Amino acid sequence: MLKYQHIANELEKYIEEHALQQGEKLPSLDLLMTQFEVSKSTITKSLDLLEKKGIVFQVRGSGIFVRRHKRKGYISLLSNQGFKKNLEDFHITSEVIELDVRKPTKEAALNLNIELDNDVYYVKRVRYIHGLTLCLEESYFNKSIITYLNNEIISESIFNYISEGLGLNIGFADTFLHVNKLTEEEAKYLGLRKGDPKLYVESIFHLTNGQPFDFSKGTYNYEQSQFFVQTNSHFL
Amino acid sequence: MLKYQHIANELEKYIEEHALQQGEKLPSLDLLMTQFEVSKSTITKSLDLLEKKGIVFQVRGSGIFVRRHKRKGYISLLSNQGFKKNLEDFHITSEVIELDVRKPTKEAALNLNIELDNDVYYVKRVRYIHGLTLCLEESYFNKSIITYLNNEIISESIFNYISEGLGLNIGFADTFLHVNKLTEEEAKYLGLRKGDPKLYVESIFHLTNGQPFDFSKGTYNYEQSQFFVQTNSHFL
Repeated sequence: MLKYQHIANELEKYIEEHALQQGEKLPSLDLLMTQFEVSKSTITKSLDLLEKKGIVFQVRGSGIFVRRHKRKGYISLLSNQGFKKNLEDFHITSEVIELDVRKPTKEAALNLNIELDNDVYYVKRVRYIHGLTLCLEESYFNKSIITYLNNEIISESIFNYISEGLGLNIGFADTFLHVNKLTEEEAKYLGLRKGDPKLYVESIFHLTNGQPFDFSKGTYNYEQSQFFVQTNSHFL
Repeated sequence: MLKYQHIANELEKYIEEHALQQGEKLPSLDLLMTQFEVSKSTITKSLDLLEKKGIVFQVRGSGIFVRRHKRKGYISLLSNQGFKKNLEDFHITSEVIELDVRKPTKEAALNLNIELDNDVYYVKRVRYIHGLTLCLEESYFNKSIITYLNNEIISESIFNYISEGLGLNIGFADTFLHVNKLTEEEAKYLGLRKGDPKLYVESIFHLTNGQPFDFSKGTYNYEQSQFFVQTNSHFL
């Protein structure tokens, strides 16, 4: 971890531990420089990272302020995919239904940018939050990138394994959402009724080099669907 | 508009017009510097902005690549709130149901960070996409910030008016999502049936100085619910 990332983590921890509220002002740049004994450019990079992560906002000429409008019980729509910290915070666990190596569907091949005769790891899981069904998820991993998976790995945090075990750099994701009605099979897995509402989420995860490695399709239990997303101005 | 923003716009237009695909490489930093006759730091800022906007990704030591996994017909979940360009791209129009100045509900006061005896503009609209019902939306605008609204303004692009008419700087937003079943009233407005699925989206929009100015609650027609969200690594 680079120094500015370490400082960003320290500041994030400080905000959490002191339960600082939205709009509270952080110490000035100068003070932070002195406190962490680093250059202005390092502190600036730390704060830029925290701003990108939606943890602070900077007002030119005025200071750095805490941004946290989080509501209790809401999962980040974009970060519940498998990092240990997120999963543990919300007690997310998995039951593996299927795991095998196979050829991709047309849809998976297209989204993973591979050929139909390439191999993928196919994973089908039911995921639970606090012991209640959260979603039914099917994932296709490009086997030439994610070279090995087993039941133990996919019961836990796949993304931690990918970044720490396989040493890959997870980059960005594109997510597509629909609302629709549950099919009979989906309803069975989620313990709901056919025709009940569902949130359907497709995500394509890429390495930092732009290669897609995971195409996932999740069908969420509407009773547990409490998601949040943060946006910065360039998206509005 | 600052020079780096202008260059970012030019590059974005270039990518659009030439229909460059995901993974295509852009010219090198040096070439872009020469082409736009600006310093390295200006080009770097332009590319950082495009990266934040999800239009390119940068691979250290390798180059700058196009990022666009957009699918036809999908609206950005986070930018359909009222900028002219987004609305026009998707033929989004509005029918105004109610517009008045009133006291906020407890919920609105809390989310706008104002008192119960402050004034808000209350706006209730049905929004249409390609002539079909997209959502029923109720918005509460802090009247001490959004000092004036009328029927014409709220039939068109409220955000354009806020930034260009009122000269305010729109900063960031927090968005909360649920999936649920339509109430009878909601179903009536959307032309659906009670109990049909709905996507319910609450957003709190802030100025760059952190002040919340708009608390909006949208109930979306599941038949038109095709949304996408882009994420960068710090959110995963």
